[in-house]
Amino acid sequence: MLIIGESINASIKPVAEAINQRDGKFVADLARRQVEAGADMLDVNAGAGMRDEAHDLIWLVQTVQSAIEIPLVLDSSNPEALVKVYPECKQRPMLSSLTLEPHCLEVLLPFIKEHDCQVLGMCLGGGTMPKTAEDVFAMAKVLLRKTGEAGLKPEDFYIDVAVMAIAANTKAALKVLDSIRLIKAYEPKVNTVCAVSNVSFGLPRRKLLNRTFIPMLAGAGANAFIIDVRDKDTIAAVIATKALLGYDDFCMNYMRAYRQEKI
Amino acid sequence: MLIIGESINASIKPVAEAINQRDGKFVADLARRQVEAGADMLDVNAGAGMRDEAHDLIWLVQTVQSAIEIPLVLDSSNPEALVKVYPECKQRPMLSSLTLEPHCLEVLLPFIKEHDCQVLGMCLGGGTMPKTAEDVFAMAKVLLRKTGEAGLKPEDFYIDVAVMAIAANTKAALKVLDSIRLIKAYEPKVNTVCAVSNVSFGLPRRKLLNRTFIPMLAGAGANAFIIDVRDKDTIAAVIATKALLGYDDFCMNYMRAYRQEKI
Repeated sequence: MLIIGESINASIKPVAEAINQRDGKFVADLARRQVEAGADMLDVNAGAGMRDEAHDLIWLVQTVQSAIEIPLVLDSSNPEALVKVYPECKQRPMLSSLTLEPHCLEVLLPFIKEHDCQVLGMCLGGGTMPKTAEDVFAMAKVLLRKTGEAGLKPEDFYIDVAVMAIAANTKAALKVLDSIRLIKAYEPKVNTVCAVSNVSFGLPRRKLLNRTFIPMLAGAGANAFIIDVRDKDTIAAVIATKALLGYDDFCMNYMRAYRQEKI
Repeated sequence: MLIIGESINASIKPVAEAINQRDGKFVADLARRQVEAGADMLDVNAGAGMRDEAHDLIWLVQTVQSAIEIPLVLDSSNPEALVKVYPECKQRPMLSSLTLEPHCLEVLLPFIKEHDCQVLGMCLGGGTMPKTAEDVFAMAKVLLRKTGEAGLKPEDFYIDVAVMAIAANTKAALKVLDSIRLIKAYEPKVNTVCAVSNVSFGLPRRKLLNRTFIPMLAGAGANAFIIDVRDKDTIAAVIATKALLGYDDFCMNYMRAYRQEKI
């Protein structure tokens, strides 16, 4: 189970302000706190505002890397920005995200072929919105084929099973679970990743829904989670999920977390 | 999702004492508190001590029914006791448990044929302990066939997918998930039920593991849960699980629980 810290994202207002004001201390602290809380990788997203996104993202990557030593998820909907920022990474990053949008494929697939990275693919683009789990699965298969042709191993590919809000659609979470099962049955080696907190958008007690969704997703085969690692109850759910799913030999990690009062 | 309150069980010392001393107030309070907390059914188990179990169980059923009006799960490993206590039930009970043990089958199958009840079946008895999910599945199929021959509809049958402690076997919870998936794929109409808290036996922070296991089980297809409903965090996990799995139209139950400060 790969845990990706979600917090360095310009969609969060104080983070956007810190980027605009080049507040390195704020960003470095946020990075450190997420690593201390147990993140395996950190998502970094500089937003797609008026400014030069690649420029902002390079500053973000440099600032984060000055504070912590875990690898980053370079998160941008702009494929040129990803290509520009990649050389700044001290550790092998994950490029996020590849979609089926033609320009995105055109820029990123040749790049993936030439560079050593992990890739996060989204079942988006190509003119249609996937309505059912079968639609998501169909797009995932296209992504798998195209990245496979570019030489990316399924072990290095993370398919983002777009999580939508249950407040808008009662079956949204079920669709995610079904999508994961279809993808994992088709290619067990590929990873599935979920931006968990989208599920609770528009509802109260969001963290309760988020931390309840994690074991459900993990049980269905999701193995990477973009979450707020700074929430203690969420991390406790992750630690318990690992113990339950046999990722934690003799529950040693669970027992250590207990002794350290993390759970 | 059917929620069964686990607390009226003679394996819990104060409950055993209350039964021995015929402390009706204690038992009635315990029943009421579980119903208030959200139980759909209550498990009643009088233990298998030196005394006459059927006699104790009849007192327990009468006492509980004087306090609350939801149906009961008659829980005894003694099939004669189940047969004796059945007529005391004001509402259609669940008989727990049918096993593959020959004497149990001999007593309960003809009884099921003649009486209107739900049945909880355990994948036990018949000389072997199920080691793998396939073993559990094989026994579940025998139980399904035998209860089907006795006229029990799969909708009225609850297969208990024996939950074991992950402290003893790291793969114990995975085996449960696999068993549920095999059973539900074979007969989608049958129910699967889990005594959730067994999973955490021998570990600290048991309620964290229990409430993390519930969404995992429910996502895999389990639809009945024997749990400690008096634990607020456990009930919050149940309410969130229902909302995530589409059992809660427009999240109305979730929103009501929020307004009532249950979550």
